[in-house]
Amino acid sequence: MCPALQTTDAFLTEGPRRKRRGSFVSGEGKVKFAMSGWNQVTTVEEMEADTQRLRDTACQVCAETYEDRKRNQTPQCRFGEDGICCRICSMGPCRVTPKAPRGICGADAHAIAGRNYLRMVAAGTASHSDHAREILHVLHMSSRDGNYPVRDEQKLIRLAEEYGIETEGRDIYDIAHEVAETALMEFGKPFGTQRFAERAIPERREVWAREGIMPRAIDREIATAMHMTHMGNTADAEALVRQGLRCGLSNGWGGSMLGTEVTDILFGTPTVRRTEGNLGVLEKDMVNIAVHGHDPVFSEMVVFAAEQKDLGDRARAAGAKGINIVGLCCTANEIAMRHGVRMAGNFLQQENAVLTGALEMMCVDVQCIFPALAQLTECFHTKFITSSPIARIPGSTYIEFKPETALEQARELVIMAIDNYKNRDESKLFIPEHKQTAVVGYPTEQIIKELDKVTNSHVDERGSFRPAIDAIRAGVLRGAVAIVGCNNPKIRPDYSHFEIMRELLRNDILIVATGCAAQLATKAGLLNMEAKDLCGAGLKRVCELIGIPPILHMGACVDISRMMLLANGIARDWGVDISQIPVVGVAPEWMSEKAVSIANYVVSTGIDVYLGIEPQVKGSAQMMELITEGTRRITGAGFIINTDPHDLVREIIDGIEAKREALAAVGVL
Amino acid sequence: MCPALQTTDAFLTEGPRRKRRGSFVSGEGKVKFAMSGWNQVTTVEEMEADTQRLRDTACQVCAETYEDRKRNQTPQCRFGEDGICCRICSMGPCRVTPKAPRGICGADAHAIAGRNYLRMVAAGTASHSDHAREILHVLHMSSRDGNYPVRDEQKLIRLAEEYGIETEGRDIYDIAHEVAETALMEFGKPFGTQRFAERAIPERREVWAREGIMPRAIDREIATAMHMTHMGNTADAEALVRQGLRCGLSNGWGGSMLGTEVTDILFGTPTVRRTEGNLGVLEKDMVNIAVHGHDPVFSEMVVFAAEQKDLGDRARAAGAKGINIVGLCCTANEIAMRHGVRMAGNFLQQENAVLTGALEMMCVDVQCIFPALAQLTECFHTKFITSSPIARIPGSTYIEFKPETALEQARELVIMAIDNYKNRDESKLFIPEHKQTAVVGYPTEQIIKELDKVTNSHVDERGSFRPAIDAIRAGVLRGAVAIVGCNNPKIRPDYSHFEIMRELLRNDILIVATGCAAQLATKAGLLNMEAKDLCGAGLKRVCELIGIPPILHMGACVDISRMMLLANGIARDWGVDISQIPVVGVAPEWMSEKAVSIANYVVSTGIDVYLGIEPQVKGSAQMMELITEGTRRITGAGFIINTDPHDLVREIIDGIEAKREALAAVGVL
Repeated sequence: MCPALQTTDAFLTEGPRRKRRGSFVSGEGKVKFAMSGWNQVTTVEEMEADTQRLRDTACQVCAETYEDRKRNQTPQCRFGEDGICCRICSMGPCRVTPKAPRGICGADAHAIAGRNYLRMVAAGTASHSDHAREILHVLHMSSRDGNYPVRDEQKLIRLAEEYGIETEGRDIYDIAHEVAETALMEFGKPFGTQRFAERAIPERREVWAREGIMPRAIDREIATAMHMTHMGNTADAEALVRQGLRCGLSNGWGGSMLGTEVTDILFGTPTVRRTEGNLGVLEKDMVNIAVHGHDPVFSEMVVFAAEQKDLGDRARAAGAKGINIVGLCCTANEIAMRHGVRMAGNFLQQENAVLTGALEMMCVDVQCIFPALAQLTECFHTKFITSSPIARIPGSTYIEFKPETALEQARELVIMAIDNYKNRDESKLFIPEHKQTAVVGYPTEQIIKELDKVTNSHVDERGSFRPAIDAIRAGVLRGAVAIVGCNNPKIRPDYSHFEIMRELLRNDILIVATGCAAQLATKAGLLNMEAKDLCGAGLKRVCELIGIPPILHMGACVDISRMMLLANGIARDWGVDISQIPVVGVAPEWMSEKAVSIANYVVSTGIDVYLGIEPQVKGSAQMMELITEGTRRITGAGFIINTDPHDLVREIIDGIEAKREALAAVGVL
Repeated sequence: MCPALQTTDAFLTEGPRRKRRGSFVSGEGKVKFAMSGWNQVTTVEEMEADTQRLRDTACQVCAETYEDRKRNQTPQCRFGEDGICCRICSMGPCRVTPKAPRGICGADAHAIAGRNYLRMVAAGTASHSDHAREILHVLHMSSRDGNYPVRDEQKLIRLAEEYGIETEGRDIYDIAHEVAETALMEFGKPFGTQRFAERAIPERREVWAREGIMPRAIDREIATAMHMTHMGNTADAEALVRQGLRCGLSNGWGGSMLGTEVTDILFGTPTVRRTEGNLGVLEKDMVNIAVHGHDPVFSEMVVFAAEQKDLGDRARAAGAKGINIVGLCCTANEIAMRHGVRMAGNFLQQENAVLTGALEMMCVDVQCIFPALAQLTECFHTKFITSSPIARIPGSTYIEFKPETALEQARELVIMAIDNYKNRDESKLFIPEHKQTAVVGYPTEQIIKELDKVTNSHVDERGSFRPAIDAIRAGVLRGAVAIVGCNNPKIRPDYSHFEIMRELLRNDILIVATGCAAQLATKAGLLNMEAKDLCGAGLKRVCELIGIPPILHMGACVDISRMMLLANGIARDWGVDISQIPVVGVAPEWMSEKAVSIANYVVSTGIDVYLGIEPQVKGSAQMMELITEGTRRITGAGFIINTDPHDLVREIIDGIEAKREALAAVGVL
């Protein structure tokens, strides 16, 4: 290993780490930290100014945005926010109050909040996993000359071998189809548990088996959750929370992990590449098409079609300089990582993309699509295309995307967008200037490759996380934080992501990011190599030596499974349990049920999850105890909840340091 | 066929049927019809008087009942009742009003109500089907000498043959295990559609295929429903309703049908037998054990254990005259049909059973269990036993029931109950006197057997529904109505069941019943042969000739699948589509999500469903149109909703007559 990484950072000699963190300047908890070094960051204030300008366009065309609707929905129902409104049978709805502490059936606040919570896990698990299932069906139809060939044959072979599928002398597509069939059984097999759970270190598997949360077939865990929460079934909050863990695990170590694996097999495992992000990636003189959603099966083909010469010619014939595909939400993460396609923004920017007036077409697949886009695109020339039977939206043009006809359909869409270019209304056109370059594409394989660069190939083990572990042990890195999740107008959008990221970097904590959090980092410019200048000296040195940005973009929300394998690999190579390593997750602005499912599998994997939005169980003290402390007794990890980002980041840093101290206490730091 | 059934009833010569129905005496819609002939019916007023007396006991012991909680929960939230409160992501909750017609994401009332509705279907499907899955796992463990042998080998062989499983020369348990494995794949197979859908007549299969609602794997339909309703997915109400139909079908022609088949295989296909019903079946001088819930795997074993001589001796040694097992809810239906075990009551009687002070033990399995039983049983000596990981209830004694140790566990429970007999507090004891005898056990096989009795074996086809069809064609019977569903304190409990049943009988409409509706019929005394005296002359004659009560008890709520096969058989033998026959369903007092799933598969099967409780979608005009008229365009059937039982029954009779007229118009009546 590179000796530089073993040297304790000069910074650290200033005094004990905890003390230094004490100098964290938060004033009233809201102070904006001065940037040091590199000053090219796009601030949240700048992003907000862009949004404000686009809202002027919204006013001009009499369109509403989520902010208007949020205002109309305020104040929100406290019963719902606290999770103590039950609509699970038609005797209800029942709402628990001190004077009416039980619903008609006798369910109390704990039962009601617990059931509502478990249903969120079930829906989140269904969403991520069903996305994976769709991709598996595409793998099952893959062919050498078809729309969907296999792009990462090595990964396919590795998975086939993991599954015990014969690979020798077989056509790669025979193997692909058998792998798909085997993987599809993970959703519905009547017996046994998730195969990928075997990837976990023995310590974790033991926890899952001991606690009865080893996940069975994915769909069965969803059905079990729905059954347990039906009227007249489980009213015991702990049992509901336990099923949340198991159901979550069937996502994280089942559906989501399958989604990631098979997406890599079909479309290629991401590698490091440069891209750009923020609304400034929309081009005034080009045909702009946004792909939005989560499932890359659709967007990959649109990207491919847009690159075909005849369509480029057609765009030029229509007076444009070409075709500009941009991504929104996790679809953006998927295609940025594989093709460098630029990212227009995250969840709460989807309306902004339309408000630029520069979008010829918005193509969506599944999840996190505002149905409001239908009304909003009507105020512009933008074509709004829905493509999946899972996400039918009134007011859209529905073109059901089918693998068999995918390229043809994608070409038709691109042509439709080109033909729509002439309909642009210049009076409504405003594209904010802000955009940032970004380095993306750090799946675990890439991280290993980067780490291999700093090993001494003659003496060190290659293909291991040892260099990272050594850096953590030396204190050069204090630990790592996975920042994930959505935006949520319950708090100031993107602000929590930004503040937490910046403070973690200053404190020598490496960040891995996915989803809308990764996109904030992109928009802000934090995915640049130069962002090392925002870091503490230790992390800066690590970035310089390895040649990585201090925030590693690991993909879409489904790719949080990559983070599980990363943590698992670090723990394995360290020889400790995952719950012991100074690695935590944080979802500062989570919004969706997928996030609740993710949080459950992350906690089940032994990783603390810091939440910046309160789960809707506050009305039950028992549920609050269970998700923050109760799961700790089961899995060794739990939620830490704080809606103030400055307080939350302080807790994260304390949590990382506490894990370091515990490791030191048992002599393995 | 018996010529008598072909003779048009003298009653019918009075004038056209529609006119006669015009003489239906409802006054203000609330008039209590005078009984004619047999006067042994227990009226709802008498049942209510019993409940009132038991509520005095509740006051005495300071216990609350559902009526207290209902009062505390009144008024109920209108947003919830109307289905326009969205708690699907943590940006919310959002509630739609004229001033705030969209949630933060832009979802309108139709999307919100549609999503909430589809989630009810998903949960109901999960519940019924998961119950079936549990029984299939027991079949998979069945053995000649074990706790669970196969009781109906013929039915097993028939199912094996239907599945294409080799039966010749094989041990019955090898066949059983292969059947179980094959059936379990119906929950999770990655390809293909439900095998039992092949049982449907070609006209129906064509509808399902054409409309894209042919059900795939059961759990997949649940997962799809959960995915579609996740934030940012389907906002199109029709797409949500269509998935409701498909998800429902995966229950009715999948999970529930499997549940029924396999329960019959394991515990015997029910045959006609006598039993008794209502709280009067509790015995003052016996050890009373109530089994409550839905899954007979548990209750069957408790019944078996209680019949063992040594336990009877132990009960007598404890000063009791013996052991008295009684059923509650659908568990009651299951064991009454197979063993004649007496039924203490339906859903809203579960607390009453405890309030008698005569219950040594309440053993529950899954679904429709009031968590309130924990607090209530604490006020008495009653032991409250939960047995399933699906239904964990705080305050209960949890003894997880396992097939391997089932008998031993059941014996321990019975012993616990016996030992508890001495703890009875005589001062709290009051058992209402009312009980009625009942004839139960009419699965389709039994109905066919009964019909065979009135065929001429020399000239008529046997094993067909022809005799019933002929009676309907002749007008002796006007049609048949399936009365199903729960109780619901939103309306006067049991009253709607009672009023609707009585009026249908008067109008020569045969009734088949399951679930809590069947139990009201039991309690009222309507399952007696003598109840023919309450019928119109045509139905009375049919009952006399065949030797059946005018209401046929077909089982538990999971057995509504039997009703689908009954309707399917009638349509097949008639040579028309199911949507054409004068057969409808009615759920006057439905309460649970299972009921919503059931209603969806019944409508998908082409059978109109009359609802006495409003589905929680009223806040969306589009959803209201879709479930009442929209599905009619898809499946040929829909919901008719009326909370006034007298109005509802009039609509049912009109509906039956309209179907007759339509059949006459095409010359097949």
